[in-house]
Amino acid sequence: MQQIRINGERLWHTLMQMADIGATANGGCNRQALTDSDQQGRELFLQWCRASGYAVRYDAIGNLFVRRAGKNSDADADGESDDVPAPVALGSHLDTQPTGGRFDGVLGVLAGLEVLRSLDDHKIATKSPLEVIVWTNEEGARFSPAMMGSAVYGGKLSLQAALSAKDAEGISVGAELRRLGYDAPKSSLRHPLQAYFELHIEQGPLLEQSGNSIGVVTGGQAIRWYDVLMRGEETHAGPMPMALRKDPVMALPKLLSAVYEVADKNSDGRATIGQLQAFPGSRNVVPGRVALTVDLRHPQEQMLQAMDENLHAALATLGQEFPHLSLDCRPVWHSPVVRFADELVARIRCATETLGYRHQDIISGAGHDAFNVAAKTAAAMIFIPCAGGLSHNEQESATPQDCEDGANVLLHAVLQTANV
Amino acid sequence: MQQIRINGERLWHTLMQMADIGATANGGCNRQALTDSDQQGRELFLQWCRASGYAVRYDAIGNLFVRRAGKNSDADADGESDDVPAPVALGSHLDTQPTGGRFDGVLGVLAGLEVLRSLDDHKIATKSPLEVIVWTNEEGARFSPAMMGSAVYGGKLSLQAALSAKDAEGISVGAELRRLGYDAPKSSLRHPLQAYFELHIEQGPLLEQSGNSIGVVTGGQAIRWYDVLMRGEETHAGPMPMALRKDPVMALPKLLSAVYEVADKNSDGRATIGQLQAFPGSRNVVPGRVALTVDLRHPQEQMLQAMDENLHAALATLGQEFPHLSLDCRPVWHSPVVRFADELVARIRCATETLGYRHQDIISGAGHDAFNVAAKTAAAMIFIPCAGGLSHNEQESATPQDCEDGANVLLHAVLQTANV
Repeated sequence: MQQIRINGERLWHTLMQMADIGATANGGCNRQALTDSDQQGRELFLQWCRASGYAVRYDAIGNLFVRRAGKNSDADADGESDDVPAPVALGSHLDTQPTGGRFDGVLGVLAGLEVLRSLDDHKIATKSPLEVIVWTNEEGARFSPAMMGSAVYGGKLSLQAALSAKDAEGISVGAELRRLGYDAPKSSLRHPLQAYFELHIEQGPLLEQSGNSIGVVTGGQAIRWYDVLMRGEETHAGPMPMALRKDPVMALPKLLSAVYEVADKNSDGRATIGQLQAFPGSRNVVPGRVALTVDLRHPQEQMLQAMDENLHAALATLGQEFPHLSLDCRPVWHSPVVRFADELVARIRCATETLGYRHQDIISGAGHDAFNVAAKTAAAMIFIPCAGGLSHNEQESATPQDCEDGANVLLHAVLQTANV
Repeated sequence: MQQIRINGERLWHTLMQMADIGATANGGCNRQALTDSDQQGRELFLQWCRASGYAVRYDAIGNLFVRRAGKNSDADADGESDDVPAPVALGSHLDTQPTGGRFDGVLGVLAGLEVLRSLDDHKIATKSPLEVIVWTNEEGARFSPAMMGSAVYGGKLSLQAALSAKDAEGISVGAELRRLGYDAPKSSLRHPLQAYFELHIEQGPLLEQSGNSIGVVTGGQAIRWYDVLMRGEETHAGPMPMALRKDPVMALPKLLSAVYEVADKNSDGRATIGQLQAFPGSRNVVPGRVALTVDLRHPQEQMLQAMDENLHAALATLGQEFPHLSLDCRPVWHSPVVRFADELVARIRCATETLGYRHQDIISGAGHDAFNVAAKTAAAMIFIPCAGGLSHNEQESATPQDCEDGANVLLHAVLQTANV
């Protein structure tokens, strides 16, 4: 292990400079994907990259690739040459939620740049080239789905589907990419990587609670989404006696309890009812309809499968208990467990131990670009703590020390991989 | 009791002719207050009234008064003369919900016209004049509050407040009244009545279930409305373990159960949660906020008071059980029990018995113009069954026989009162 370190002060300075772009009054950021603010953030990042002499390219969905050449390829910046190893990549995203924070995504990109700059400072050449990647539209706040750029890269979403996604004003991803000058051909998406590392804030409370500064991310939870609709009969709130009502809200206590029970039976399971609404939504009308969404997660695929079965069984029982209501549960999405590449995870763990940071293995609860990249390339992630586990929130925060520690782990994991 | 009867066939014919105005594809009506359709309905009604020679006036909020002179006032149609008794009134409203039915309100107005026409047919003069009233904007679908015209008449709502109410397009009641030619001075609101009768469909299932054709309405339930807000902390659906969440939806089963329990403890009590929504309403975000409305009703004021106390006690207990959530319950409206005039109720009961119709005493669950009129004048109501208790629905229906029976009760109760 080389005993070099990244420059924590410089990393923090770039983080705070980036946070000035699209800064919100409450201390957060609003740089939604492919807006002028997002583009301004990308330009600032590329300005730093060009100043260091790194080569810049982009692909057909606007993902940015910033390359520091390897030992055997000083003159080769397009990565297409057969005798040059595929690059070791590191990155994340620069776009934010409308009321997002200063670290989600940004840390992974700017720590990537800091790794490259530190290698320059120490005049260290790597065997393989290194590339810092900015994935387009990770947040999905303006254009759905989220993690769009990495999904297209990973082959999970077609370029056509991504380009035709529209925002609330009807403006498409394709139109915004053209406006901002991203005109790469479809072939640009064929860009093999040797490995991919992503440093990210945890967006959860586990590291903070355990007092560890590094999370060695071994993979991601499996997720299942459902749309649930309960129908009864809309009627006046006044004249209809309670016993004669077909009020789906009256069945809701048991329905909600059944959903949370499904998570409770699995200590690592999670159940979220994010959308819940009664219709028609008039104060003095007994609702005829209640719609809700269910998000179930578990780190083990088999356990999520059991949760799915338990949910359906509970709803069937509920249907028998409320024969005057119709109850429909429609699965809408299933994202299987993601397991990161053992070798890369081991390198992260090893780098953390060598650097002397307190760490723990952790499973990502949220989705990340690394999940999509993992479909195509060996990938792994590093987490650092964020205050209160808060994220997607203007108050999101991480300490300069944790950012520095995370970037050092990134540096050494990347170095180990690029010098194999 | 005079053995005359109204003309059921003629009544049904006028009901169906009125239903053609603003008729919807699904067999209902859309004649929202002070729209062109509402005005067209009023014009059709007034055309019938003028053909029978009745005098027509309107007041400053657009309520219509159609007068059949009494024995002592043949030449006096303005009702202002001191030696003429105040009129005995009967009526309801002609406006409907956007997807309303053919009977709600309309029946009371057209049965009123039919009573006058039947008296003409039988050449019966009454001691007091009779007036059929069309109250403006009972439904409140376009302009809030509901029961507007009768509330202004009854002194429960200021004329100014009513005139400045605006619809979703920003058009005010005052502007629509001017556009439609209602230009009466404020003094027009001072128009004493001797008594007021309103025939209406039940909008509930009790008469249908008991097989009775007439409900003798003794009064209206007391109503209390509340806005309830539960706040927790918005966070990612993925990374945050269940035990650490401040998810207000997880407390909803107990909250909802507590509300319905409040009604359950009082067999005649009613509890409705008409509005219910989780925020921010994203599928993979643990909600930070749940907003709901509570509508509590009871025929006895004292029992509703107890329900109110039980609700607050239950919420206080809930607050202790979920100390990480904030729970706020704000009372927004209280409509006390309405008790109709004993003498008028007795006359309705007596007329029903004499006519040989099956009947029962009943308390109105819904609000009606008669509640507002009762604040100023002796008032009472007559209910007839409607299929399945369905109302505010295009499928709303009542049989020709029940409409006829209800109008006959109205005729005889009015006759008894006007000839005292």
